[in-house]
Amino acid sequence: MDMVATGSSKQFIIPKTMKAWVLGDPDQLTLVEKPVPQPGATEALVRIDAIAVCATDLEIIHGGLPAIIQGGTPFNKNFTPGHEYMGTVVKLGPSVDEFAVGDRVTVEVHAGCGRCERCREGMYTACLNYGKNYGDVNKGHRANGFTTDGGFCEYAVNNVNTMVHVPPDMSDEEACLVVTAGTAMYGLDVLGGIVAGQTVVVMGPGPIGLMGVGVAKALGAQPVILTGTRDSRLEIGRKLGADHLVNVTKEDAVEAVQRLTGGKGAHYVLECSGAPNSLNEAARMLNRGGRICLAAFPGKPVPVDVAYLVRNNIYVFGIRGEGRSATHRAAALMAQKRFDAKLIHTHTFSLEEVPTALKYARERIEDAIKVVVKMRK
Amino acid sequence: MDMVATGSSKQFIIPKTMKAWVLGDPDQLTLVEKPVPQPGATEALVRIDAIAVCATDLEIIHGGLPAIIQGGTPFNKNFTPGHEYMGTVVKLGPSVDEFAVGDRVTVEVHAGCGRCERCREGMYTACLNYGKNYGDVNKGHRANGFTTDGGFCEYAVNNVNTMVHVPPDMSDEEACLVVTAGTAMYGLDVLGGIVAGQTVVVMGPGPIGLMGVGVAKALGAQPVILTGTRDSRLEIGRKLGADHLVNVTKEDAVEAVQRLTGGKGAHYVLECSGAPNSLNEAARMLNRGGRICLAAFPGKPVPVDVAYLVRNNIYVFGIRGEGRSATHRAAALMAQKRFDAKLIHTHTFSLEEVPTALKYARERIEDAIKVVVKMRK
Amino acid sequence: MDMVATGSSKQFIIPKTMKAWVLGDPDQLTLVEKPVPQPGATEALVRIDAIAVCATDLEIIHGGLPAIIQGGTPFNKNFTPGHEYMGTVVKLGPSVDEFAVGDRVTVEVHAGCGRCERCREGMYTACLNYGKNYGDVNKGHRANGFTTDGGFCEYAVNNVNTMVHVPPDMSDEEACLVVTAGTAMYGLDVLGGIVAGQTVVVMGPGPIGLMGVGVAKALGAQPVILTGTRDSRLEIGRKLGADHLVNVTKEDAVEAVQRLTGGKGAHYVLECSGAPNSLNEAARMLNRGGRICLAAFPGKPVPVDVAYLVRNNIYVFGIRGEGRSATHRAAALMAQKRFDAKLIHTHTFSLEEVPTALKYARERIEDAIKVVVKMRK
Amino acid sequence: MDMVATGSSKQFIIPKTMKAWVLGDPDQLTLVEKPVPQPGATEALVRIDAIAVCATDLEIIHGGLPAIIQGGTPFNKNFTPGHEYMGTVVKLGPSVDEFAVGDRVTVEVHAGCGRCERCREGMYTACLNYGKNYGDVNKGHRANGFTTDGGFCEYAVNNVNTMVHVPPDMSDEEACLVVTAGTAMYGLDVLGGIVAGQTVVVMGPGPIGLMGVGVAKALGAQPVILTGTRDSRLEIGRKLGADHLVNVTKEDAVEAVQRLTGGKGAHYVLECSGAPNSLNEAARMLNRGGRICLAAFPGKPVPVDVAYLVRNNIYVFGIRGEGRSATHRAAALMAQKRFDAKLIHTHTFSLEEVPTALKYARERIEDAIKVVVKMRK
Repeated sequence: MDMVATGSSKQFIIPKTMKAWVLGDPDQLTLVEKPVPQPGATEALVRIDAIAVCATDLEIIHGGLPAIIQGGTPFNKNFTPGHEYMGTVVKLGPSVDEFAVGDRVTVEVHAGCGRCERCREGMYTACLNYGKNYGDVNKGHRANGFTTDGGFCEYAVNNVNTMVHVPPDMSDEEACLVVTAGTAMYGLDVLGGIVAGQTVVVMGPGPIGLMGVGVAKALGAQPVILTGTRDSRLEIGRKLGADHLVNVTKEDAVEAVQRLTGGKGAHYVLECSGAPNSLNEAARMLNRGGRICLAAFPGKPVPVDVAYLVRNNIYVFGIRGEGRSATHRAAALMAQKRFDAKLIHTHTFSLEEVPTALKYARERIEDAIKVVVKMRK
Repeated sequence: MDMVATGSSKQFIIPKTMKAWVLGDPDQLTLVEKPVPQPGATEALVRIDAIAVCATDLEIIHGGLPAIIQGGTPFNKNFTPGHEYMGTVVKLGPSVDEFAVGDRVTVEVHAGCGRCERCREGMYTACLNYGKNYGDVNKGHRANGFTTDGGFCEYAVNNVNTMVHVPPDMSDEEACLVVTAGTAMYGLDVLGGIVAGQTVVVMGPGPIGLMGVGVAKALGAQPVILTGTRDSRLEIGRKLGADHLVNVTKEDAVEAVQRLTGGKGAHYVLECSGAPNSLNEAARMLNRGGRICLAAFPGKPVPVDVAYLVRNNIYVFGIRGEGRSATHRAAALMAQKRFDAKLIHTHTFSLEEVPTALKYARERIEDAIKVVVKMRK
Repeated sequence: MDMVATGSSKQFIIPKTMKAWVLGDPDQLTLVEKPVPQPGATEALVRIDAIAVCATDLEIIHGGLPAIIQGGTPFNKNFTPGHEYMGTVVKLGPSVDEFAVGDRVTVEVHAGCGRCERCREGMYTACLNYGKNYGDVNKGHRANGFTTDGGFCEYAVNNVNTMVHVPPDMSDEEACLVVTAGTAMYGLDVLGGIVAGQTVVVMGPGPIGLMGVGVAKALGAQPVILTGTRDSRLEIGRKLGADHLVNVTKEDAVEAVQRLTGGKGAHYVLECSGAPNSLNEAARMLNRGGRICLAAFPGKPVPVDVAYLVRNNIYVFGIRGEGRSATHRAAALMAQKRFDAKLIHTHTFSLEEVPTALKYARERIEDAIKVVVKMRK
Repeated sequence: MDMVATGSSKQFIIPKTMKAWVLGDPDQLTLVEKPVPQPGATEALVRIDAIAVCATDLEIIHGGLPAIIQGGTPFNKNFTPGHEYMGTVVKLGPSVDEFAVGDRVTVEVHAGCGRCERCREGMYTACLNYGKNYGDVNKGHRANGFTTDGGFCEYAVNNVNTMVHVPPDMSDEEACLVVTAGTAMYGLDVLGGIVAGQTVVVMGPGPIGLMGVGVAKALGAQPVILTGTRDSRLEIGRKLGADHLVNVTKEDAVEAVQRLTGGKGAHYVLECSGAPNSLNEAARMLNRGGRICLAAFPGKPVPVDVAYLVRNNIYVFGIRGEGRSATHRAAALMAQKRFDAKLIHTHTFSLEEVPTALKYARERIEDAIKVVVKMRK
């Protein structure tokens, strides 16, 4: 308790160690005392105030990261998962003046290396130095909660690129959801960005899908069609702006979209379900020249009618994370109260209760959507 | 023989009827006498001088068009197939001054309706009124050799949008190949257009693939890697500009591309093989954020590792035909002698010999690549 | 009164002649009886229900069109001006099924030829056959109220490309304003399309500028800054969504924008004032790499600091009309009630009162903004 | 002479001090002994082998940088100008493995901060932290020869982002010219990238203009038209690929372009002359919807016909430097021997003769185009 950071008028006492959940063998999370990390030149130290559970967290905790990401990163060496957090800036790296100590911020995942071809062209979520943030050749890439320590703890280091200001009237819980809306925003940006007056189908009313409905409607899409299996989730989609709901257990999703568009088909599909046949269905929902953004995916290879894609001039965009400053855009839309992201926040737990929070999210107990861990009351 | 068209200084006697191959039942082509068609307001009448056989012609003759294209178009009612032709303008529709009677032209397939959303945004090969060129609601779309009469005959009507001037020193045979190069050009345009100094992999040394090599190299791609199964075809690729050849019967294509790029992976893949695993292989040839253009496809659904596409931020572009004025661009590159398209022209037949020409193309007799039908000597 | 058109369940009696204002010598408008025009294959006949006065109408009536547009079009031969109209479809050309008789529609100006390079790439407002809609080589281009008869009359012919459906709960007066919002939408699309969370400055609170505020805010721009000379106009901007108003008679516009953006400068400027120094001021409002859309312009050459543009990587986009289906997008945003376009509608007159309507618009009598001519009560 | 850097198989003895030209008062260059700089984490130390003189160097030496760039950078405090250099990597920063000691490299100017909005979107030449590479808030931006020490000396530090490999068969003198070709490449990229088969006018046969001819032709532009005042320069343009030369002292440039394009106008103008009326002339050379890239500019505000830009849907792109990895692309085209950049290299001097080299460049002695300073023989 000897470090003191000072900024504007605020000042925070930063302890030497903190409570943090760390991963041992798969599925073994332990709450330990760990050193508070120090921000580098282009980074800030964030005191975490709240963090939401993402399905990817569950995958990482259960199975580690896919080999391509894992690279040299040891899977279970004291790693702290969690990436959908927000908090308060308590210390700045020496070159940081974009933020002040005391600022409330929410975060996005990817800090690109800034030097590879993809970063240089603005595609920093596809950084070619992904995971290289340690060892002899540290390229400075960070993906907190993936390749660098995340947020199920008290403090985290964030590259200045990954922080977004939170307006005063946005709660900690809501601010956690910005990054989810950011992923949806990124998907719509990649699809063309300007969707006003065009048909957007969102497949899958999970958190990203529901935020996709909110963002698409905020940007003027007309109509927004949401497909899913559970009426309760679909109804939340309606509150977020969906013009039409399709329960795929009751009617064929492709037929429904064709009917709702008067046989014209949709302009865009934001696929957030990861269902095995979703790519084929998405293609058949579209008109010629339509576009699909894949924000989810089935775990194993699935049969795809590639010929249909080609014959119909369909473009398919696989995305990761929330590039092109989409988190900033999503935060702005939420600050403008264009949609009520809080509708997907269902449960709140404390830091000590992280295993319970994960269980609620994993098993969808009480129809949990977004489970938030709040650090203090 | 009573119609006379006059233009600039030239004049052509246009007969009332012409020789034309027409399709009856599948695989039944007959040489008949058929009326010479008349150009509409935005069209010209082209005397066909040469036409190349495309693999798609073989599919159409054998099986008709896919249902999605067929729409109300009767499959075997006097239809003349063939779309890779060139010839001489002999008559102009009343609003045409872009061409003069006597001009040598080569053609592309798609004349969009000019009024649907896709045409209005410049994606005319994805015209939403595809096939609607007859009946009560004629939208004026044409795809000669697909939904309107094609070129295995003496005269064809072409929308002014589908004609490109042929320079005097380009032979009829070479001019037939412009549209094939145009498809490759379109693929590279869709992939980003500017490939100078970047790695392009072309999968499949068929006509489009080989032209893809020529166009990619002409635009400065570095290196251009061609994959295929036959050394003879690959060698033609080398002459067209490929820096590296990969015979996939001898080495793993993905490993080869990774080796040839120093483990970095390629920027772009132009997939022209239609092999069942080509999309998965293409994805693994790329670096993160890389792009695939599908100019060919397997006939049936195939297993695709969608997760790999998403995790690696890969974009996949299905294309048809040769949009964005790609044929004009390809013609310019060929006029500048940037690559020798004639290398893929292997056989020549007369109009009467069309069945033989098709057989050579279908069975790859004498290693046929592009088989050309020449109307006169 | 002998022509009857039938569609869906509706039917309209179409007279042979109609009342129409026509232009003689400059500034000489006469109300005459004129034949009702007939729709061509891709066109519909629209019974005009309401039309708004645009500043460009005043220019055309006073001075004719600029030479570049005029081309062979005789300036004062029975020409009917006016382009911001809406009405009811009463007859369809033979290929039209996108609309039904009885549909309420609003219109945009430009119907491109569909065959020139620009139309083929989707830039139909820059049609290379602009004005060629008559005579020996009719390319089919239309710009009603500019090069073809406009809407200060009872009936007009419209290309199917230029019509947009009007929702039932939108009044005739409001529907007239869609095209104005469409121009603003087009400007924002050209600037990048996706402005959520970014700073947009709109210079000039005329009709396009005010609609620009509404559209920019609807798309999530943050903040939207409006500059102008009159507080009354600026206040309307506030109601349409402007976050900040800058009265340039009271403070320096550039300094104000820099202050309001915390010294960072804006991302985009939509210049709608046409003031002599507006391009220089716009440039200085931007951050490096910022973009300017010019939707207005000074009548004569003005001093421009080109060096500033180059040194600051600024892009400048001159636009005409409302391309890229912007009118459809604007209509959708208005149907969604994202901003209240009716705020700029100040006066209403009858067809007989057109000269008074023009006088109100020209002289800004009673602070007129949009003056609408309504055909019936 | 006590530092030794080791890489791959090579090893260089790096002295503690070096010879360097430094700027005192305007126009006062002195050859001094200065410490050899040390590369930071993302940088390398380059032993300079050759450097070309750019017109911008002359401006900086004479007048300092424009205020906007200068910011807090003291103009004449030991600053070493010069930015068009190439050399040999002799030492690597700790995170650098993209290059090895011993690699021959040429350089581009801009290393963006990697964290501002522009860098994050790939527009690193418009870095919002331009010049902030020192002091309390060092953002890491570098623009060697502008805001950080340049190359009229023996060693320079370069961010890894700013180095491009030089092929073995490219001479030091030619490698210096890559960055000039890179600026032209960037201009064409910004204009749309894909110019094959389209008309490109290059105004001004200075070094960038002449390289613009070479690059445009390499990318397949047809025709390439070069305008200028001196036949000797224009003739070099012909050797670099210009299809048409226009001596503007003998004929009107706009009329000539209209004539050479059959009255259609050009698609693109790359303006490299900086002449007072060049923007107006460029606009009139274009067809509607055409685009202008400004790579040069007049020193003072000039009258611009803004109305012409707007009425003709013209887009104007101001650029700085050589963004979007254009230097890599230009190097690839030169390695492929697509054009002979050496044609613009006219004179060579030694490091001691820098003042003479500058004089030759400034006064165009013996028709000097590119004057190169070569460090050793």
